[in-house]
Amino acid sequence: MRVAGEHHRTVRLAGNVVRVIDQRLLPWRFEFLDLASVDAAAHAIREMAVRGAGCIGATAGFAMTLAAREADSWRELEKLAGLLKATRPTAVNLAWAVDRQIEAIREAGFDRRVETAVMTAQAIADEDAAACEAIGRHGLDIIRAIAARNPGRPVNILTHCNAGWLAFVDTGSATAPVYAAHAAGIPVHVWVDETRPRNQGARLTAWELAQEGVPHTVIVDNTGGHLMQHALVDMVITGADRVSRAGDVANKIGTYLKALAARDNGVPFYVALPSSTLDWSLRDGVAETPIERRGEGEVTHLEGVTAGGRVESVRVVPEGSPAANYAFDVTPARLVTGLITERGVCAAEEGAIRALHGKTA
Amino acid sequence: MRVAGEHHRTVRLAGNVVRVIDQRLLPWRFEFLDLASVDAAAHAIREMAVRGAGCIGATAGFAMTLAAREADSWRELEKLAGLLKATRPTAVNLAWAVDRQIEAIREAGFDRRVETAVMTAQAIADEDAAACEAIGRHGLDIIRAIAARNPGRPVNILTHCNAGWLAFVDTGSATAPVYAAHAAGIPVHVWVDETRPRNQGARLTAWELAQEGVPHTVIVDNTGGHLMQHALVDMVITGADRVSRAGDVANKIGTYLKALAARDNGVPFYVALPSSTLDWSLRDGVAETPIERRGEGEVTHLEGVTAGGRVESVRVVPEGSPAANYAFDVTPARLVTGLITERGVCAAEEGAIRALHGKTA
Repeated sequence: MRVAGEHHRTVRLAGNVVRVIDQRLLPWRFEFLDLASVDAAAHAIREMAVRGAGCIGATAGFAMTLAAREADSWRELEKLAGLLKATRPTAVNLAWAVDRQIEAIREAGFDRRVETAVMTAQAIADEDAAACEAIGRHGLDIIRAIAARNPGRPVNILTHCNAGWLAFVDTGSATAPVYAAHAAGIPVHVWVDETRPRNQGARLTAWELAQEGVPHTVIVDNTGGHLMQHALVDMVITGADRVSRAGDVANKIGTYLKALAARDNGVPFYVALPSSTLDWSLRDGVAETPIERRGEGEVTHLEGVTAGGRVESVRVVPEGSPAANYAFDVTPARLVTGLITERGVCAAEEGAIRALHGKTA
Repeated sequence: MRVAGEHHRTVRLAGNVVRVIDQRLLPWRFEFLDLASVDAAAHAIREMAVRGAGCIGATAGFAMTLAAREADSWRELEKLAGLLKATRPTAVNLAWAVDRQIEAIREAGFDRRVETAVMTAQAIADEDAAACEAIGRHGLDIIRAIAARNPGRPVNILTHCNAGWLAFVDTGSATAPVYAAHAAGIPVHVWVDETRPRNQGARLTAWELAQEGVPHTVIVDNTGGHLMQHALVDMVITGADRVSRAGDVANKIGTYLKALAARDNGVPFYVALPSSTLDWSLRDGVAETPIERRGEGEVTHLEGVTAGGRVESVRVVPEGSPAANYAFDVTPARLVTGLITERGVCAAEEGAIRALHGKTA
């Protein structure tokens, strides 16, 4: 997508280094981070300079080209692969990308490890970008239908967190239909949940949309219900961190509350995801999805920019008051209008999900 | 209630001045503000050094003692009364307290204006405190019943915003049952919604509870649904800014989302309010309640304390991204388990509300 009018992907090869956007600095500064070693790449993933399932997977894929250069034995290569996989053990795409590299190199032979890793990394990134683009095409049909029912006014879309291009290689999942509609000349306006505690909505989604010129308004997470009661939201689109085979959606904490409000007000609630986000081993997402609890500091402190332009972290909870930080919640399939995948749109229901993926029960 | 072990009310007479707690400085600093003139009192209300329906009403009542001293004619007294009423035109209690003073002075005679105003101000404050205490007694019965069903573990209560003693003269509305249960030796634990955008939960409610030694945990507003799905909330109690005669509850933005989650998970959802919060002229609260839109700055900027101990406001939304700030939402009566008033508990339903207040339809 575009930043200051120029096209970028979140991660790519630049000569012998892996070049990523340092997302910790956004939206205050747009800077690249050049990863010249597996150690540097592991550090960048661990410290969340890159984040988001697709972006992490692609970064790990490219980091394996560095591993191929650094390793002079299979043993060494596997050690470096293990180091990458250990950075964020819950990120499904990370392990998947590293394993795919190992398999490709095994097939091609150790002597051809560098060119094989480069080709495979590029394929992983291109596939991620292509899946998001396909999600955009399928989601566009839904937006187009809503626009047709309300001629002369923009389609109001509410989103939560950042399932934008910054979370993938390009285009994003939840944002893909928005970008597709904007490109097709359909007027859209996005309500951006700020998404406490890490504020990925205010910091990343708002910034992305501004760069692409998509009209949007940042709101606190409390606002969506009121907007839906007053017909100011035409549809909700969120991303997903993990979707059970029954269609239960684990996503950023607070997603469930928006799904409840959507149901109460007859607003369609869609979840956009590449099929790789489906966890076929899970059925009851609410009961079975492990929910990460992160540090209190993300709740008690918040980062922003002072009037003087300095990035500063401030404490927003009194000393002596504890805080809890549940990172995700699970929206039951019964509240989800549909899943938008690269294969098409289907109901959040086991039979429909299996059918879309050519699987029998 | 207690601060550092010492009992305080939010507002009282101290000699010839009105002494309030400067709530703009909480929780970072606990300081009094002495209001020696009607001008100073009007400024304090306008700038939200005092806030919360009961607290504003009582402050206006006491400010009328200053008006009685300053005025040497009826005309002057009424001018000062008008100045106070204009500070926050939507605060029902403010106008009510000022009008009650004017009436009392009219009855007693202009010559007895000062002693009449002092007596009336004290009565307004005492009645506010007494109503909150009665709310506490009625709410205590509900908490006691929940505790009896779950022996050996604390009653988990979720609250939104600050309907604590800081919003009244003493005890608070939503917090009154919590303080009563804590005093009665019933173990309670409060989930405190931080309550963006102004963070009254994190800043005021958490601080209040800490001062009284009530166990509590601050959470971001997105968290309540997840907690309820996992049986970590036994009841919700919020305050109210205005309740229609049909039982629809206007309260801080985001209250509606918690009520939806409570309903979806079978968690009782109570609203605590002095009967003065009822607006008998409104029936359909969702359609008829005017919702205040406040400045963008409350969303785009947040105040906290730096590591160096300096109070600093930081920008948390990128420059160039607009924000919207709806201050309240309305929770339909169908989602409310009951209203806890100083007269007792009743269903959020017109007949029950009328019956409790001895009114016929």
